[in-house]
Amino acid sequence: MKFRPFPLVLGHEAAGIVESVGPEVTKFSPGDKVIPLFLPQCGECDRCQSPKTNHCRKNWAHTQRGVMADGTSRITHQSQQVYQFLGVSSFSQYTVVPDTSLAKIPSNAPLDKVCLLGCGVSTGYGAALNAGKIEKDSSCAVFGLGAVGLAAIMGCQAAQAKRIIGVDINPDKFEKAKMFGATECVNPQDYSKPIQDVLVEMTEGGVDCALECVGSPVIMSAALESTKDAWGTCVIAGWSETEAMSVNVEKILMGRTLKGTYFGDWKSVDGVSKLVEDYMNNKLKLDEFITNNLPLDQINVAFEHMKIGKGIRTVISLWPEEASDTVATLKMNQ
Amino acid sequence: MKFRPFPLVLGHEAAGIVESVGPEVTKFSPGDKVIPLFLPQCGECDRCQSPKTNHCRKNWAHTQRGVMADGTSRITHQSQQVYQFLGVSSFSQYTVVPDTSLAKIPSNAPLDKVCLLGCGVSTGYGAALNAGKIEKDSSCAVFGLGAVGLAAIMGCQAAQAKRIIGVDINPDKFEKAKMFGATECVNPQDYSKPIQDVLVEMTEGGVDCALECVGSPVIMSAALESTKDAWGTCVIAGWSETEAMSVNVEKILMGRTLKGTYFGDWKSVDGVSKLVEDYMNNKLKLDEFITNNLPLDQINVAFEHMKIGKGIRTVISLWPEEASDTVATLKMNQ
Ligand SMILES: NC(=O)c1ccc[n+]([C@@H]2O[C@H](COP(=O)([O-])OP(=O)(O)OC[C@H]3O[C@@H](n4cnc5c(N)ncnc54)[C@H](O)[C@@H]3O)[C@@H](O)[C@H]2O)c1
Ligand SMILES: NC(=O)c1ccc[n+]([C@@H]2O[C@H](COP(=O)([O-])OP(=O)(O)OC[C@H]3O[C@@H](n4cnc5c(N)ncnc54)[C@H](O)[C@@H]3O)[C@@H](O)[C@H]2O)c1
Ligand SMILES: [Zn+2]
Ligand SMILES: [Zn+2]
Ligand SMILES: [Zn+2]
Ligand SMILES: [Zn+2]
Repeated sequence: MKFRPFPLVLGHEAAGIVESVGPEVTKFSPGDKVIPLFLPQCGECDRCQSPKTNHCRKNWAHTQRGVMADGTSRITHQSQQVYQFLGVSSFSQYTVVPDTSLAKIPSNAPLDKVCLLGCGVSTGYGAALNAGKIEKDSSCAVFGLGAVGLAAIMGCQAAQAKRIIGVDINPDKFEKAKMFGATECVNPQDYSKPIQDVLVEMTEGGVDCALECVGSPVIMSAALESTKDAWGTCVIAGWSETEAMSVNVEKILMGRTLKGTYFGDWKSVDGVSKLVEDYMNNKLKLDEFITNNLPLDQINVAFEHMKIGKGIRTVISLWPEEASDTVATLKMNQ
Repeated sequence: MKFRPFPLVLGHEAAGIVESVGPEVTKFSPGDKVIPLFLPQCGECDRCQSPKTNHCRKNWAHTQRGVMADGTSRITHQSQQVYQFLGVSSFSQYTVVPDTSLAKIPSNAPLDKVCLLGCGVSTGYGAALNAGKIEKDSSCAVFGLGAVGLAAIMGCQAAQAKRIIGVDINPDKFEKAKMFGATECVNPQDYSKPIQDVLVEMTEGGVDCALECVGSPVIMSAALESTKDAWGTCVIAGWSETEAMSVNVEKILMGRTLKGTYFGDWKSVDGVSKLVEDYMNNKLKLDEFITNNLPLDQINVAFEHMKIGKGIRTVISLWPEEASDTVATLKMNQ
């Protein structure tokens, strides 16, 4: 089991402007707008060259240990080393990232909106489209209606699913879920029987695809069991690094598939570039995920709201007003 | 949880000759050689019409309850009802099966060999080819080297896998595994660490595909964990109706897929017909699975051998010599 090193600077969903580049950087110049990527796309490793995965190998071990490729971090506090989070550390006015962990975006892209594509929205949207391969007229259930789940719903809608059922224990999320395309919403707390039984009944046998966007092993089992025999697919997007989920073997033998997704199965640079373009062309919603905007010194308010489930995403401004900044050292919006 | 009804006549891996047909049967005639199928292919249900699955709906509930479509069984003993097993009950000189649960095979097909295609061999072979979609030059691990596992190895070889690792706690199985195409074999009992760790080390990160052909939830977890990050696939062929397996969520999030297979994902009638043809054209081994032949009155010897892991398959002759027999009542070889 691995743990994050402390102390570290958090933040990994961001957008910013290149302040300066290292001597060997050729793809970026100061002033470029960029989205930093916790998952790189080096383009050269065996995985980048395979169409089957987005799990680029570049710097993986270092990133997990909170350092750059040379084994050191670029952040110190009173001469103590501070680690970087997932290679990004975006709750900071400046950060340093490798050039394989950046997507260049158009100069007219609004940083305070497209920052969402650095993680949650891309993950949920891709969980439906790439991992779930949702089909036209299919039935889907999305567990958890935070940014990841809402983006999954948006993906189901883009794939023209017929029935998209949102599931959350917080009914405040239902209105937004419907706006993103949910055809109905259910609250497990309204039923005495397990939510998977409710869904199987509602859909006469189960959904074609269930997407877990909560991060709870118990919900993961429920999501799998809410899919139908023969070809039901359950995609796990919710995160859990230390726990195990229980899988009823007979459900698997009856034709179900369980798979996970990391960053929505997008090759990171290509995927984020495409999604920013989709947003700019009004093919993808982003503004609707943002329920608050706060400056960095109020970030703990944002954490409080996140904990109690108030709103979807708070965008944190790291600079009081536009300014120029240091490869890629970035001005961040998170 | 469902249980099989008792008393019942066992047996579901067989071949025979049609003795007589019901008034509405048009596809079979007395004298036809056939393989009875525990999984039907009606050709008409939504699932038969989808390329995504082989889980035909026909008679499913009745079959699980040990009866025919009219709710009764065709077997009695001293006027007590005896149930049918999976719609087949082939440890019997005669049985009655629906015409959607039979594959017609060529008149020159040897019943005492092709009977194996009624379950285990088709399942293992299809687990590799259809469910695992084994790729050329890939690496595979097959857990359990009974008929299902050996057939999975044969499937991996047919798909031109580069490395095929057989895993069994009974080293007597290794010679045959190599004959079927295993490039190496390992016995978990020769190691102090978990077998998944051994395999991950042997293959520098894990196999592309692991096939569980034992039927043990603990081995299923080991099989999943022996696959590689990014695109490792674990196919469960081994059976367990009542148990749960534990899935390390992080392994799933890192890009693995877990799926099950029922009858090797073959549409039953089409698949068995094709496999019999492959055998007749020397493209598929069957004789090599058969390690003993016994008459029905010695079937308990066959069960003993199965329990202690002696040999692979015993073929049971239900008739002392060739004879003709009573839709579809079959002369069986199991
Ligand atoms: N796989 C990846 O690459 C990846 C990327 C981003 C985020 N994630 C993970 O996705 C998950 C969701 O992220 P988010 O930002 O949307 O989180 P969030 O906290 O905004 O949303 C989670 C939602 O789940 C709901 N929920 C909690 N318990 C529930 C239950 N028992 N049943 C149904 N709903 C329940 C909450 O009410 C909330 O609406 C997290 O686990 C996150 O770590 C994974
Ligand atoms: N999914 C399906 O449609 C389907 C169809 C047919 C059979 N099955 C199942 O496939 C499984 C295998 O069938 P079979 O006929 O080959 O059985 P078998 O008993 O001949 O073979 C099982 C093998 O597993 C080995 N084994 C036992 N414990 C082990 C361990 N801990 N590690 C490694 N190997 C171990 C045994 O030594 C044996 O060689 C059974 O569970 C059977 O019910 C499933
Ligand atoms: Zn790469
Ligand atoms: Zn994230
Ligand atoms: Zn059918
Ligand atoms: Zn069988």
